[in-house]
Amino acid sequence: MEAAPLAVSLGDPAGVGPELIAEAWAKREENGLSPFFVAGGADLLGAAARTRGLMVPVVQIFHPSEALDCYDRALPVLAGADGEYTPGHPDRDGARLALASLGEATRLAVEGGADGVVTAPVHKARLAEVGFTHPGQTEFVAEACDVDPGDAVMMLAGPNLRTVPLTVHIALDQVAAALSEALIERKGRIVAMALMRDFGIAAPRIAVAALNPHAGEEGRMGNQEAQMIVPAIERLCAEGILIEGPFSADGLFAPRQRETFDVALCMYHDQALIPLKALDFDQGVNVTLGLPIIRTSPDHGTAFGIAGKGQADAGAMIAAIRMAGECAARRFGN
Amino acid sequence: MEAAPLAVSLGDPAGVGPELIAEAWAKREENGLSPFFVAGGADLLGAAARTRGLMVPVVQIFHPSEALDCYDRALPVLAGADGEYTPGHPDRDGARLALASLGEATRLAVEGGADGVVTAPVHKARLAEVGFTHPGQTEFVAEACDVDPGDAVMMLAGPNLRTVPLTVHIALDQVAAALSEALIERKGRIVAMALMRDFGIAAPRIAVAALNPHAGEEGRMGNQEAQMIVPAIERLCAEGILIEGPFSADGLFAPRQRETFDVALCMYHDQALIPLKALDFDQGVNVTLGLPIIRTSPDHGTAFGIAGKGQADAGAMIAAIRMAGECAARRFGN
Repeated sequence: MEAAPLAVSLGDPAGVGPELIAEAWAKREENGLSPFFVAGGADLLGAAARTRGLMVPVVQIFHPSEALDCYDRALPVLAGADGEYTPGHPDRDGARLALASLGEATRLAVEGGADGVVTAPVHKARLAEVGFTHPGQTEFVAEACDVDPGDAVMMLAGPNLRTVPLTVHIALDQVAAALSEALIERKGRIVAMALMRDFGIAAPRIAVAALNPHAGEEGRMGNQEAQMIVPAIERLCAEGILIEGPFSADGLFAPRQRETFDVALCMYHDQALIPLKALDFDQGVNVTLGLPIIRTSPDHGTAFGIAGKGQADAGAMIAAIRMAGECAARRFGN
Repeated sequence: MEAAPLAVSLGDPAGVGPELIAEAWAKREENGLSPFFVAGGADLLGAAARTRGLMVPVVQIFHPSEALDCYDRALPVLAGADGEYTPGHPDRDGARLALASLGEATRLAVEGGADGVVTAPVHKARLAEVGFTHPGQTEFVAEACDVDPGDAVMMLAGPNLRTVPLTVHIALDQVAAALSEALIERKGRIVAMALMRDFGIAAPRIAVAALNPHAGEEGRMGNQEAQMIVPAIERLCAEGILIEGPFSADGLFAPRQRETFDVALCMYHDQALIPLKALDFDQGVNVTLGLPIIRTSPDHGTAFGIAGKGQADAGAMIAAIRMAGECAARRFGN
């Protein structure tokens, strides 16, 4: 099968997305980035590149496959919606453009015209103002793939660490109630499968973090470890998955211990994201596992405050595009 | 006032404590360690040094002040209880020795014969078997100082980061209920005072981590930020303390953000200890703030599994002794 390019969505045009996409293209060779195109925003991307002092010729294309031919000499942008580049000043027109770009990029990945989708950062509250009803881009992409959002598993990946938060955007005092043996099992399976298929790890080693401090100290500080985490681990072990735990979360991300696993399943948002951002800030990629398409995203927000000022680091955007290309190559055998 | 030496407790003699104390003495000059003595265990310390291949002469002393004279040429050990060195094989005699040493070292610090106490790691379950009724060494030391254990505040300090867990050894689903505006205020004040008095920071910058992911996103994921964290911060600000937050905990420990504060107040154990151990493993010191005495401890356990094998890293023990000496010098003006 011939390789298709990756589709990149613009993100909020007042944020750092457009300039980071332009920089990723400018640095495509040194970073070994697979061909990609952007869904819309041709004029805007040119303007964003100029504010960053980058020489980035933009070429409009009318079909994804054209990106493969022109990618060497210009940033390919699918003809479509566009707008004024006003970094740091988000408005509803920009939110509509971000939504249109996300929809188009995702559609092309689902239909096979693109090998995967890389989503630039959007602002959830602004998207909601123009009719976006999903909690986030991940749920939007899952629905476009006809996948239960509960089966779209967020993994954060950086050079030092991969973590998966088993619960995500809920209050801390709701976490224990939201966890279950079934949830840990289901997501553990999805993670194991994805690391084999898309990350080239033949026998992924999964470490499971405890919910409670010191893994509960045999029930003295919480019993969810015995109640649900241990049984889920035993079930997955019985299926041949290399999974161990629950480990005290405080020591799990120390240098020697993090060499012992390929991914850590974490019980809640901050348990997964604190170590990732402490160790791999500016290089963290958010990957959605469990989908029929490849989807990655840089693990940062719109950063309106520094947009257009040349300060935003393109490391995470570059890493997200590179990872999507690598996953696609493994999955589709390009 | 003439300086007194620091008192170091042996820790569980079957753990890594004795060998790390011996190594700290051997490396006292390159690390600028203030004079210290060990409370008991003279034969045991000599044996531990030998298994580690260290040339450490041990000299018995009968009063703390003698340590100042002999510290240059030998490891001073207060005459008292001793035992067989059987690394990796903890027993009740060892637990009794650990407890006696902790009691003696603490007593000397409280009475002024020592400028502070550095506690080597003990095994809580083993101590409990020989009658120790405190949740941990911190509470033991607080009681010896006649301080409410709630006012003995644990701070973790490493080269990259200082964090304070406002709640410690409780189940995760109990954390929200254990927090209060009053608790945050009280501990915030103790932390500010200690950083000024003992750490030489004239105007400490305190960052407060949020409890919920994304700091609750204006109440969509928990409201403890608005209910208790913000009011506590406002009250402390009004007292002139440089305190800000609540910040999303996931980004708070990323490189650029952690340069903006001297200490982070965290809402629970793992929120404080995950970033500390990810960044500063083998160098983390546990300091107890809010006591009339200086007390530090290496931030690791007895590590029975590697005791006597020469594998344990002495970095945290050395850092704990150095920090106690530096704090004492500031507090007592030595």
